[in-house]
Amino acid sequence: MTNARYEVLGIGNAIVDVIARAEDDFLVRQGMHKGAMTLIDEERAQHIYDAMGPAIEASGGSAANTIHGVASFGARTSFVGKVRDDELGQAFAHDIRAAGVAFDTPPAFEGPSTARCYVLVTPDGQRTMNTYLGAAQDLHPKDIDSEAIAGAAITYLEGYLWDPKNAKDAFLKAATIAHDAHRTVALTLSDAFCVDRYRAEFLELVRSKTVDLLFANEAELHSLYQTADFDTALATLRKDAKLAVVTRSEKGCVVATPENTTAVPAAPIERLVDTTGAGDLFAAGFLFGTARGLGDERAARLGALAAAEVISHLGARPEKSLSALAQENGLLK
Amino acid sequence: MTNARYEVLGIGNAIVDVIARAEDDFLVRQGMHKGAMTLIDEERAQHIYDAMGPAIEASGGSAANTIHGVASFGARTSFVGKVRDDELGQAFAHDIRAAGVAFDTPPAFEGPSTARCYVLVTPDGQRTMNTYLGAAQDLHPKDIDSEAIAGAAITYLEGYLWDPKNAKDAFLKAATIAHDAHRTVALTLSDAFCVDRYRAEFLELVRSKTVDLLFANEAELHSLYQTADFDTALATLRKDAKLAVVTRSEKGCVVATPENTTAVPAAPIERLVDTTGAGDLFAAGFLFGTARGLGDERAARLGALAAAEVISHLGARPEKSLSALAQENGLLK
Repeated sequence: MTNARYEVLGIGNAIVDVIARAEDDFLVRQGMHKGAMTLIDEERAQHIYDAMGPAIEASGGSAANTIHGVASFGARTSFVGKVRDDELGQAFAHDIRAAGVAFDTPPAFEGPSTARCYVLVTPDGQRTMNTYLGAAQDLHPKDIDSEAIAGAAITYLEGYLWDPKNAKDAFLKAATIAHDAHRTVALTLSDAFCVDRYRAEFLELVRSKTVDLLFANEAELHSLYQTADFDTALATLRKDAKLAVVTRSEKGCVVATPENTTAVPAAPIERLVDTTGAGDLFAAGFLFGTARGLGDERAARLGALAAAEVISHLGARPEKSLSALAQENGLLK
Repeated sequence: MTNARYEVLGIGNAIVDVIARAEDDFLVRQGMHKGAMTLIDEERAQHIYDAMGPAIEASGGSAANTIHGVASFGARTSFVGKVRDDELGQAFAHDIRAAGVAFDTPPAFEGPSTARCYVLVTPDGQRTMNTYLGAAQDLHPKDIDSEAIAGAAITYLEGYLWDPKNAKDAFLKAATIAHDAHRTVALTLSDAFCVDRYRAEFLELVRSKTVDLLFANEAELHSLYQTADFDTALATLRKDAKLAVVTRSEKGCVVATPENTTAVPAAPIERLVDTTGAGDLFAAGFLFGTARGLGDERAARLGALAAAEVISHLGARPEKSLSALAQENGLLK
């Protein structure tokens, strides 16, 4: 694992978030699933945009947010994802590179525009997401650079990659290259509805050990094993997964292996503003800690710290240096 | 003033802000004037963007921010400004319309892209702005709808309109129409460097009573009268202006007429995050109060409240309903 060109490389949908505040009745009128990510077509995207309030645009995408976070901790990182050569695509590329992340996937020069996620943040800080995949649809196995993957200590993938038509093949190609190079493959289940769509395939990825490290939140875990009981789901997960981390919002997280479980509390926050990116940034801290060999518990504490930072403001990427924040909190020297 | 179609109509540069955090030494390396607005060309814009950190995009523009604020207080408003028909121009149009503002200026279908302001926010909350005017250059007297201006109780203009080549003529056309219809014309001096560029013309606008209501901050006032002494500048201003409001950051503001001056304190804030939009939102509250005939002091208190809201978060437009905020603070029923 030493001398890795990248400590963590992420592959995911390259998305620009269009973020607005909304009341709960807006979600009801629009028939949205509160707290979930729903895929939408271009017509629906236009409809939602016309109906929603004044917005800000910020680079997003689950795995991209995570990789930005890992870079903010100070690690060498890379991101693979597809944008168009339009204004939002240029903004996405600028933002991830400006965070110090290598981003070498060529943009599409034709076809649909850069992916957008319309994020509605309700007064309780919950986010409800509507994603138009656009150019992210066109991520293809040929966008996977074998040398980059083989040179990355951890390759991190998002479950959302099952949605675009060729991205799953890109995902599997990357996993094979990584394992051939004796590297670690990590996966986030992304969203409970995403698990609903691809349950059998995700279970197979875990059971076949295509995935070495699994991230899930409670809802995703319940969906994966189709049970409402946390302990039942966790016990089953420990039989299936080599290493898994289940995040539980303000209840913290549980690191699970076949041998044991470790609970780690959430980090305190002053005020919950916007939960967008909480899971993504938790993964960032855990991946960073794992890549640096800091042990599961310290990795989980770094994850909790990064999640706390991102939910304290609007948007899914850290505003502060996570490296400095970790030092202030005694988690890094 | 009754039965006005619009209570406040604003004319200004239609700009999308590209906002990033930066350390002071970044400003020094880039040779930027901290706290000021500098005009830049496309090449310099690209250079700054390449050098700056991860950013968010949010609709901006001084007068546009103000009009968004007036709408948030619950008034009937309109904005006149020029964007291109590109992604950022569409975002600008969406955001201002979604705030309830009428925005009928046709976009440019060719020529430079929508104006961008690269805003660097330093750890002390100060903002340093670099504006590429792009499509805003092409605001033209023909974009001034006489009926709309004649139907607006107050027409509000920004000093920055002196920068694009035809916008000054649009400004003067609007002022003439407004006065012919016995309406009020308001102007903000925008920025001390802007005053440096157009001092003689701005003084003439005030002295000729082309402007009925003038907004300035301390630096702009000092620049206008080329004196470092506040009392001297204020005394001269009271000879020249029918009604002026001078904002003084945490020291509050002074409402000045030839007859007397009234000092109003700043509204308290928990934490200064980003001063972008402070002056714009102060003007919003004062214009709203004036349009509603609430008197100068209450108008100034509404201005102070709106300014306090906008400096408590990143970005130049209010995140909360200013109408609700004013009610919570006993300034509106």
